[in-house]
Amino acid sequence: MGSGMTDDFERMWRDLEPLGRSATSGGYFRQPFLPAETELRHWFTEQAHARDLTVDVDDLGNLTAWWRRDHSSPEDAVVTGSHLDSVLDGGAYDGPLGVVSALAAVDLLRSRGFRPTRPIGVSVFVEEEGSRFGLACLGSRFATGSLSWEAARELRDRDGIFLPDALHASGLHSHDNIGMDDETGPAGDRGDELRRRIGVFVELHVEQGRDLVDRGSAIGVASGIWPHGRYRFDFRGAANHAGTTRMEDRADPMLTYAMTALAANKRARLAGQRATFGRLDVAPNGTNAIPSRVTAWLDARCSSDDALLTLVEAITDQAASRAERDGTSLEVTAESVSGRVEFDAGLAALVAADHAGGDWPVIPTQAGHDAGILSAAGIPTAMLFVRNPTGVSHSPAEFASMPDCLVGVSALADTLERLAR
Amino acid sequence: MGSGMTDDFERMWRDLEPLGRSATSGGYFRQPFLPAETELRHWFTEQAHARDLTVDVDDLGNLTAWWRRDHSSPEDAVVTGSHLDSVLDGGAYDGPLGVVSALAAVDLLRSRGFRPTRPIGVSVFVEEEGSRFGLACLGSRFATGSLSWEAARELRDRDGIFLPDALHASGLHSHDNIGMDDETGPAGDRGDELRRRIGVFVELHVEQGRDLVDRGSAIGVASGIWPHGRYRFDFRGAANHAGTTRMEDRADPMLTYAMTALAANKRARLAGQRATFGRLDVAPNGTNAIPSRVTAWLDARCSSDDALLTLVEAITDQAASRAERDGTSLEVTAESVSGRVEFDAGLAALVAADHAGGDWPVIPTQAGHDAGILSAAGIPTAMLFVRNPTGVSHSPAEFASMPDCLVGVSALADTLERLAR
Repeated sequence: MGSGMTDDFERMWRDLEPLGRSATSGGYFRQPFLPAETELRHWFTEQAHARDLTVDVDDLGNLTAWWRRDHSSPEDAVVTGSHLDSVLDGGAYDGPLGVVSALAAVDLLRSRGFRPTRPIGVSVFVEEEGSRFGLACLGSRFATGSLSWEAARELRDRDGIFLPDALHASGLHSHDNIGMDDETGPAGDRGDELRRRIGVFVELHVEQGRDLVDRGSAIGVASGIWPHGRYRFDFRGAANHAGTTRMEDRADPMLTYAMTALAANKRARLAGQRATFGRLDVAPNGTNAIPSRVTAWLDARCSSDDALLTLVEAITDQAASRAERDGTSLEVTAESVSGRVEFDAGLAALVAADHAGGDWPVIPTQAGHDAGILSAAGIPTAMLFVRNPTGVSHSPAEFASMPDCLVGVSALADTLERLAR
Repeated sequence: MGSGMTDDFERMWRDLEPLGRSATSGGYFRQPFLPAETELRHWFTEQAHARDLTVDVDDLGNLTAWWRRDHSSPEDAVVTGSHLDSVLDGGAYDGPLGVVSALAAVDLLRSRGFRPTRPIGVSVFVEEEGSRFGLACLGSRFATGSLSWEAARELRDRDGIFLPDALHASGLHSHDNIGMDDETGPAGDRGDELRRRIGVFVELHVEQGRDLVDRGSAIGVASGIWPHGRYRFDFRGAANHAGTTRMEDRADPMLTYAMTALAANKRARLAGQRATFGRLDVAPNGTNAIPSRVTAWLDARCSSDDALLTLVEAITDQAASRAERDGTSLEVTAESVSGRVEFDAGLAALVAADHAGGDWPVIPTQAGHDAGILSAAGIPTAMLFVRNPTGVSHSPAEFASMPDCLVGVSALADTLERLAR
């Protein structure tokens, strides 16, 4: 990889640095169809055009930049990419690293004089984090047909804005290859068209744990993704005055929630799984008022589908029995559940094999990814992870060193070359 | 009390019914200096003018309507009143019942042909609930000189709006008897002027518990107010990915908070005191992110100042030791603490004595009131409570029956007559 390549990679990285960044925390917030994310999408389109790549936009705003789209049968494209949105106060790498590395890998392949016999696509999927409409991997679910337009159009953000209105407001209806009609749904089924084009999918992503740090490897290849569910717990009680209401006369949903949060943590810890309550909404949320309602979202991930079911049932049972004691009520709604993903083992072996430092390690991950959705849709899929020295992600402390990122670009280019030659 | 009186009382009540009411919950939200509260203040001024009462406005917007202000020495006025603001999703009675009853009591005294020898004032104090600027009894603290303009002007609401700007935005600077100047502070010290005028203060308020229900009495007289403190607990940890971060590698402030909320409840319950966490702010508040910060507000009230100190120390100690275990940190800030209030016992006896059904019961309360602030400032003060059949307050379920309310008006009129003749 020449120094020109390195410069180009670093330049793209600097382009993205200020977009959606908080001046106070240094973290990012790039929600779909809002100004920062719209700017990122424009940036991607410009980068693609500068490379003579043709950009497709589907009805949900998923972007794909094509190298040699028209020289191939529809089913055998080699597609790479990731997402550009972020959680609130997230890091710089989660998502964008895969997109920037994909563009840089195209540059590297061209500098090697490589001419693909299969088309190569670079995709940007919308709303991978689910931070706005509550459904993780929204874009890739739509692109693979697992989420219909009829279901997507009913999604609302926290301010009650419907997805089609958010698309509209961001100017996405103005793309000339969008045939959106809010009354009748999209004119075409472009999600399905992308799925029919993809022969194989590869996503490069920053690692979100410390596995590669422990293994001393810059790069890893994913074996699979743990099952993952998001569940909304609505605890309801009786609003009352915090001073005059005797403790024994209360129906305080905050207590039921608090015990549930502790129970979820303990059960997950003992079972070697993951359970987190990181998002809350309290009503009326006043200092001198016992709440009438506490809504809390459980994020649970386990090594198997059975383990996930068992964990969530145990937490729900414990919460329900505490609710009885507190005189409160509990309703649990599964907002999204993704089953275990096993990536194509042969493909993982191909991606991992014969690099400068030997084979890359093949490791599981507990984070959801667009790659998981594509794999579940039957597309042979692989993932490359780039080492994160802090192990921290979804935080401004998320990091990958420039040398590791450049090894990532090479590894991705090698993979694309192996698949597309 | 004639049927004309009853009609007038009910008419005033109907005037107030729609102002600041939520169409969904039926609860009220009347924050100081925002449209609903501004409308309420205009309504009060109109009502006063319709009764030929002269209205004073102090520099913070506290209103006093005077009957015979100019026929008296400055120190011996009999003042009654309450507040018109509410908590979020609060009830109709907490505050407005005291104001409407005061105006109705003036009507009743006039219909009796009563001619006061001391001036009678009806006051409306701003921001009793502390829902906007976080300091309960803001108006009465200012009116009694316990809160200076220099301190008041530094207060900010949750959106970062400074108090003087909020006053300005609500049009309060346009009152011709306001000499506000944002640079130099108010021209006069009208708070102090009100304090010098008041010889005795009486507040009528809906009861916020079930004591009068248990006693079978429509009316009670307050003996005193429990000490009350509001404390901000800032729990800090490390934001991280909810999936990839092993449970044992976390520094999750949600856990420290959850244990603290349970501990506060248990300690208060065992000690017969009150402790409530009803307000929370979580950062970044995302489903798939371990929080970096949980801020929770403790509302604590105890039968004595010592008991309050002991309770809050015990909760803080328990929270700090859990924080050590969780790898999180804790900072506790007392946002407001009010010591025990003992109302004037002789005055309470006078107010309670010799009513149609015998003496009214004299009972303590756990709720803060403007009356407590006036009492603490050395003004002989009494409170009348009107029975609340639900015992619930700070909620749409807060209630007082019309017959009980009318007994309240009579009791208040009797009290004013005893004091002002």
